[in-house]
Amino acid sequence: SINVARLLGRLSELGAIGRDADGRLVRLAASDADREGRDRFVSWIEAAGLEVAVDRIGNIFGIWAPADVTDVQPLMLGSHIDTVIDAGIYDGCYGVLSGLEVIETLKESGFVPTRPIVVAAFTNEEGVRYAPDMMGSLVYAGGLDADAALATIGTDGSKLGDELRRIGYAGDRVPGFLKPHAYIELHIEQGPVLEREGVPLGAVGNLQGISWQRVTIEGDANHAGTTPISMRRDAGHAAARVVIFLRERAKAANTPTVATVGCMEFEPNAINVIPSRATFTVDLRDPDEERLNQEEAALARFLETLSDEEDVTITVERLARFQPVKFDERIVAAIEAAAEARTLPCRRVTSGAGHDAQMIARIAPTAMIFVPSMGGISHNPKESTADDDLIAGANVLLDVVRKMTEE
Amino acid sequence: SINVARLLGRLSELGAIGRDADGRLVRLAASDADREGRDRFVSWIEAAGLEVAVDRIGNIFGIWAPADVTDVQPLMLGSHIDTVIDAGIYDGCYGVLSGLEVIETLKESGFVPTRPIVVAAFTNEEGVRYAPDMMGSLVYAGGLDADAALATIGTDGSKLGDELRRIGYAGDRVPGFLKPHAYIELHIEQGPVLEREGVPLGAVGNLQGISWQRVTIEGDANHAGTTPISMRRDAGHAAARVVIFLRERAKAANTPTVATVGCMEFEPNAINVIPSRATFTVDLRDPDEERLNQEEAALARFLETLSDEEDVTITVERLARFQPVKFDERIVAAIEAAAEARTLPCRRVTSGAGHDAQMIARIAPTAMIFVPSMGGISHNPKESTADDDLIAGANVLLDVVRKMTEE
Ligand SMILES: NC(=O)NCCC(=O)O
Ligand SMILES: NC(=O)NCCC(=O)O
Repeated sequence: SINVARLLGRLSELGAIGRDADGRLVRLAASDADREGRDRFVSWIEAAGLEVAVDRIGNIFGIWAPADVTDVQPLMLGSHIDTVIDAGIYDGCYGVLSGLEVIETLKESGFVPTRPIVVAAFTNEEGVRYAPDMMGSLVYAGGLDADAALATIGTDGSKLGDELRRIGYAGDRVPGFLKPHAYIELHIEQGPVLEREGVPLGAVGNLQGISWQRVTIEGDANHAGTTPISMRRDAGHAAARVVIFLRERAKAANTPTVATVGCMEFEPNAINVIPSRATFTVDLRDPDEERLNQEEAALARFLETLSDEEDVTITVERLARFQPVKFDERIVAAIEAAAEARTLPCRRVTSGAGHDAQMIARIAPTAMIFVPSMGGISHNPKESTADDDLIAGANVLLDVVRKMTEE
Repeated sequence: SINVARLLGRLSELGAIGRDADGRLVRLAASDADREGRDRFVSWIEAAGLEVAVDRIGNIFGIWAPADVTDVQPLMLGSHIDTVIDAGIYDGCYGVLSGLEVIETLKESGFVPTRPIVVAAFTNEEGVRYAPDMMGSLVYAGGLDADAALATIGTDGSKLGDELRRIGYAGDRVPGFLKPHAYIELHIEQGPVLEREGVPLGAVGNLQGISWQRVTIEGDANHAGTTPISMRRDAGHAAARVVIFLRERAKAANTPTVATVGCMEFEPNAINVIPSRATFTVDLRDPDEERLNQEEAALARFLETLSDEEDVTITVERLARFQPVKFDERIVAAIEAAAEARTLPCRRVTSGAGHDAQMIARIAPTAMIFVPSMGGISHNPKESTADDDLIAGANVLLDVVRKMTEE
């Protein structure tokens, strides 16, 4: 079994890096805080006696390749260590640090694997500063050109390539340089299902599709006191109608579709001026590709009607679009078997969040293990998982990895 | 009649001051751009041979007090020269520069008034950077303590008193030091009525009440992909419901009530995080005090229901509350008589915007003159008034002033 004190200690140590003046955890991709987190992770890889590699998009790899197996395709474990704004400490970091922990535990036990084992920390999984999310793993899997990704402009106007160079993580390995035999990602659920069912483990069978769009509505600035309601071209009011439309539709549809408006900006954003412009994001998700297409189409139709009704101009920019993914049945079954061997209840679940596993599934058999999130809360400092569950998840990962590298 | 070239020349000269990198006119109260505009105005007062005075809240006065009448209460003309963000060049400036123009024209013609004539430029009429609006005139009229006003914190975190000192306009005169015999303000209508009726002049009989509130809604940040709609405490969605409520109510009520949500901010404002906090402003106006009270109460009731339905916490902060004002019937009639003498059609109108006249009406008989705004557009770079209308308005002001200072 894994070294509990080491894993939990590192989780809280990494979680202390990137606190802002208000104590909020903000370790956005390729920021100074991200640099500090990366440096710490690299120091732990080195302390474990693994080889460190960094690719052009800044993905970090800790490689354990015993002499006899250097030519064999590696088993890859991993996740990400960038965070959202005001984040919890488990999202991503738990999977990365557990991957390292599993390798160290196996190495210390004298185990000799039949293939290399690699732990990966992928760049910019959250997509908060640079869109799309899961960018590092997407580039790694060949789904996005590295140069195009490095040219991405962030919400703060910065360019990802410049920022990676600045923080010292513009590596020279070509993304995809290690083709994994298989990929396994351990992660907190970030949703309420496992806790509600009282089950400590989830074998993730599939992952929903993600559609990200940015909508800009342009009306006309005018005086709040003198402009009759009938003469207004109010971009803010039109934007509010979209927020309501998405909610009403998600409620009425009675499907697992979720829709979120997370960002919203008004211009000129003055108390006595009718907004001339509203810019906001739409995050739409569904495990079914056809239904996700339908929801996108319904939004497009609504925006067309809205544009007429409110006499506004609407433009839509696509920020990300990922299809739903079905994970590898053999690895999912291996996870269930490992849980059963430790007499830990385990349930098949769908991932609501996007994960690096979704991208790596394009190039290798892939699966994920979930542990419960208290109250279903994530992307929030209240994000939390019981220590026992964290330990159970890491031990199941250990068992699956040992199994997959001993035959 | 007034010097047309001088008035129009100064209007465009002042309108060129405070352009940002994108060419937008942004001369917010007590900013560097405001300093530059004030300096120019003061240079014109001095060139006209008037005395310059600045009071503690930064109101600027150009005083024409011929030797025999220094002890008599002055007739005051005025408005403001601060602007909104991305403003037009007429709002406020037209009244200030016409006031100066009227004094210079009378002075140059050899006219000797029976009382001093003063032109005033009041600080922070727009209220965009510091709330409430009409702050300089409110303080001048004794409606707000000067020290309290100087301690106001702006949207950018600055303190008004510090900023006035920084730009050199923290004067030493006590606000209210000149008690006006009467006050007249010439202004663009900023609304569509005069243009629609094809009338070049408005004699403003009254001015609607203004209620400004800031609403903060607090929900819970959570993951956009994993959180079922039923479990969300979405501050952004709750805010959108308020925007829709205000619009539906204003439309249904079939009264002149107008409601505007001009500012909106989400937190953490990230694409894949349900907003934990939404902050927005509500601007409610009605010429009838009782109805304005009713609208405020209806909003308060709605927020209570909303708080239950959306499981969010709502706090409301009052930023400004001004009662409707009826202007002085004798001055309004004098404006109508002056228009008639020049055979200019003139109509009684209600002001939809707040004005410094609304504040000075507390301490002196007051009225306003309006000229048409093309397309009813204001608080927008497209704000515009035909030169003929600008000239007509200034000449009617000239005639009324002459009349009121010759008996
Ligand atoms: N796991 C996670 O939070 N990923 C970020 C991408 C997403 O929004 O799902
Ligand atoms: N005239 C004018 O635009 N005043 C600003 C205050 C208001 O919002 O009415």
